[in-house]
Amino acid sequence: MQTIEKWKRYELTLPGPTGGNPFRDVQLTAIFDHNNHPITVDGFYDGNGIYKVRYMPEVEGDYTVTTYSNVSELDGITDEFNVTSAQENNHGPVRVSGKTHFAYADGTGYIPFGTTAYAWTVQPKEVQEQTLETLKENKFNKIRMLVFPKSYDYNTNEPAIYPFEGAPKVKRGGTDWIFDASDTGFDFTRPVPEYFQNLENNIERLDKLGVEADLILFSPYDRWGFARMGMENNLQYLKYIIARLASYKNAWWALANEYDLMDLVGQIPLKDWDRIGQFVHEKDPSQHLESIHNFYDPPQHKDTIKNWYDHTKPWITHLSVQSDNVFLVPKWIEEYQKPVVDDECRYEGNIEFGWGDNTAHGMMDNFWRVILRGGGCSHGETYIDKPNTDRPIWWAHGGKLYGESQKKINFLYDLLKDNGFTWVKPQATSGPTWELAAGSTPDEKKWLVYFGDNQPEFELFSFLPDGKKYSAKLINAWDETIEDFDGEITNNEKFHLPRRPYQAMLLTEE
Amino acid sequence: MQTIEKWKRYELTLPGPTGGNPFRDVQLTAIFDHNNHPITVDGFYDGNGIYKVRYMPEVEGDYTVTTYSNVSELDGITDEFNVTSAQENNHGPVRVSGKTHFAYADGTGYIPFGTTAYAWTVQPKEVQEQTLETLKENKFNKIRMLVFPKSYDYNTNEPAIYPFEGAPKVKRGGTDWIFDASDTGFDFTRPVPEYFQNLENNIERLDKLGVEADLILFSPYDRWGFARMGMENNLQYLKYIIARLASYKNAWWALANEYDLMDLVGQIPLKDWDRIGQFVHEKDPSQHLESIHNFYDPPQHKDTIKNWYDHTKPWITHLSVQSDNVFLVPKWIEEYQKPVVDDECRYEGNIEFGWGDNTAHGMMDNFWRVILRGGGCSHGETYIDKPNTDRPIWWAHGGKLYGESQKKINFLYDLLKDNGFTWVKPQATSGPTWELAAGSTPDEKKWLVYFGDNQPEFELFSFLPDGKKYSAKLINAWDETIEDFDGEITNNEKFHLPRRPYQAMLLTEE
Repeated sequence: MQTIEKWKRYELTLPGPTGGNPFRDVQLTAIFDHNNHPITVDGFYDGNGIYKVRYMPEVEGDYTVTTYSNVSELDGITDEFNVTSAQENNHGPVRVSGKTHFAYADGTGYIPFGTTAYAWTVQPKEVQEQTLETLKENKFNKIRMLVFPKSYDYNTNEPAIYPFEGAPKVKRGGTDWIFDASDTGFDFTRPVPEYFQNLENNIERLDKLGVEADLILFSPYDRWGFARMGMENNLQYLKYIIARLASYKNAWWALANEYDLMDLVGQIPLKDWDRIGQFVHEKDPSQHLESIHNFYDPPQHKDTIKNWYDHTKPWITHLSVQSDNVFLVPKWIEEYQKPVVDDECRYEGNIEFGWGDNTAHGMMDNFWRVILRGGGCSHGETYIDKPNTDRPIWWAHGGKLYGESQKKINFLYDLLKDNGFTWVKPQATSGPTWELAAGSTPDEKKWLVYFGDNQPEFELFSFLPDGKKYSAKLINAWDETIEDFDGEITNNEKFHLPRRPYQAMLLTEE
Repeated sequence: MQTIEKWKRYELTLPGPTGGNPFRDVQLTAIFDHNNHPITVDGFYDGNGIYKVRYMPEVEGDYTVTTYSNVSELDGITDEFNVTSAQENNHGPVRVSGKTHFAYADGTGYIPFGTTAYAWTVQPKEVQEQTLETLKENKFNKIRMLVFPKSYDYNTNEPAIYPFEGAPKVKRGGTDWIFDASDTGFDFTRPVPEYFQNLENNIERLDKLGVEADLILFSPYDRWGFARMGMENNLQYLKYIIARLASYKNAWWALANEYDLMDLVGQIPLKDWDRIGQFVHEKDPSQHLESIHNFYDPPQHKDTIKNWYDHTKPWITHLSVQSDNVFLVPKWIEEYQKPVVDDECRYEGNIEFGWGDNTAHGMMDNFWRVILRGGGCSHGETYIDKPNTDRPIWWAHGGKLYGESQKKINFLYDLLKDNGFTWVKPQATSGPTWELAAGSTPDEKKWLVYFGDNQPEFELFSFLPDGKKYSAKLINAWDETIEDFDGEITNNEKFHLPRRPYQAMLLTEE
């Protein structure tokens, strides 16, 4: 009997009909049964007369598989396999843990240290390889990426292949997102298997690097019509994506990038997202994380969430936020009782947009502030070497990083890991030191307090518990240094700090 | 006939009774009549058997004065005077102009460049002199200051004299603000004239320096009971203050510092402020600016105004805000259709509080952002040389400045003045460059765009009007430099900027 490692992929490959439209005409499901717990999983057509059914088993032991189809040669096929224990470095999928944070399925801590390369899988092969190389060199454990190609400023090249059969009927510019839905040269009922094979191979390679694929299913940045397929095609596409990818343990479902912009430019109306979100939740046999990301003119993010999707909906597992008001993370965690990931808080770069001209210091600062306040955070980089450059820009194309914040983010990642922060408990979010960012290990034995660009020279940590004493290390987040701090820290004695930017203090209870 | 310069002070001095309680027992008003426009003004007791009636005439020509009193020797006294035109440097009081900004009564532009020294008038004489000297050396044109002494950390010394007769019955610490209202050693029905004489002399000296006195009438930072006098005493005190000070053209009425904290600590309940605000508005014959300032735990300022007083009330002339979310200023201006002054946006300093450990860069940055977005802004400085220092701290005591932001603020002040920004029209508050701060002269011939700590190297000012061309100067806000920028700026061509923090660009239409 075949053996499958827990949280890895079982795949059943079956020959079947090629006539008609196999993507739509052929129904194929399978029931996976373990210990009388049956789960129904959709199969999919992978081209060239090949049908597949995939599943990620989550429990050790024996499974049986039985297929059901409206095509006799695919119907009633059975198989069985045995699920063995997870090997080292296989921690399973990331799940919500303790309501407001994350952990891998095996209980290992997971704090989202994300990055962003929206369309990296549709770039030339060498750029895709370079992207994986860059990820390998850094500590990012999540990447925001689109299923579809991206159309935007600096995103005007056509992809080598498209996700659906056909070709553009009209040549449009990078930001020509508004057009008649019928004016497209694609057949949305016929996915191109090679396109999705490349996508899933890349997701698999991300998994090997320990990177979660925060997969964006719809996006407004579209000149081809993939954002205007209509509800029926949208759901069929989702069914296909889930059938292909739900067995990849590192896949997350990000329903949309900037779902509200999709409404504003006449793509997917606001009312459709309940149906879409619920559909993904129902279809996915592996219950991956599911989120939906907001747009709205950024200054508005600074004081209102009125344009957010209703994140209390049960199919939304966590908040994927666009906001540079990083002070609000603990409040959102508290109010929604779900994990919060600030997935766009202004990228390090030098371009002409407010979201893409942050300094390395600013990007680093946002990471420290969001992470210590209990959230996850995502990096992005938008450096160009000249106007209308052809050089890949990490945020969209992947490739190389030219900035500095990633090093500082790596430093923070290691610092948390080395000190037992399996998740960060936000601390001192109000009161006299609200301008700092403070978090502790779950057991409050270690605290990390970030001073940012503030300059308290005579500081008092009045938020610490009464009667406790802490030894301290003084950290410089930018210089990536850690040194012993002379003197004990308590909640009732001031201590002297040098006047330098981007300091932090690591406290250990004595 | 006596002549009085327009917007200066007419004062009638009358001998009267000293028995009983002259502050409460003696009623004294006067009617000032000019051209059949009578105005009723309250007189006040100035101690030693002296009663006074003061008035700031606002129209040139002849006035008559007639007193009314329940004491015969003060009743029916008449006088007359002639009001002459204003001399150079006398621009009159600051008024709201064009709904959303300010101007002096003679039409001269006024943009609030404030500072803060809450209790400077109750410090030792040499500190008061030093404060005036510091103001003379800088460009601040408004100062937030209390009528009463201040009790807080670093504010534990007793003043030399008190505003009311008596002495503290109980010795309390700096933050012992909560106590029984009856447990005070003061007679709130008997102001101490010398206390108020010192206050008004200082207001007069501020006027000579061109500084508006943003006079805070009530404050929660009180250990003596001046915040717990009860409504009847509060109104009598306000009547006294207005009678004394409404003739000072540079007086502004700030009803409270942190009115909502006064409720939280059981001083003046929220419901009383309508009555207080309306009373000041009715009693003041000269219609000075009137505001009320919020507290609430600062992180909350970042996304809500739910704890603000209702600034739409007609007696509130402008918003005096505590918030470091400086992006919201244009929104508040738009929504309230009143001028907005960000009077607390984190002071430059090195103390242990979130509101008092901003860098000089940060304080400067907030000024640029608030002012260019059409608001007024206030500086404050909280440097200490050691814990529990006796050295005056500008924010509370006045004295000297030890920081650097004031120089940068002076630079911005001159830049606006030299380039015809009588007020700043906020520009580009949303859209792709929302992270910058941009404002223009009212006629849009000159624009000032601030890049802050962002680093766009290939920038596009798409917000500029179509078809216009601008010559430019490149400014460094921190270095205080202005140099010619090579190249014309339009709304459709990118230009190259060096990657340096705190740059700005001054555009002049060609």
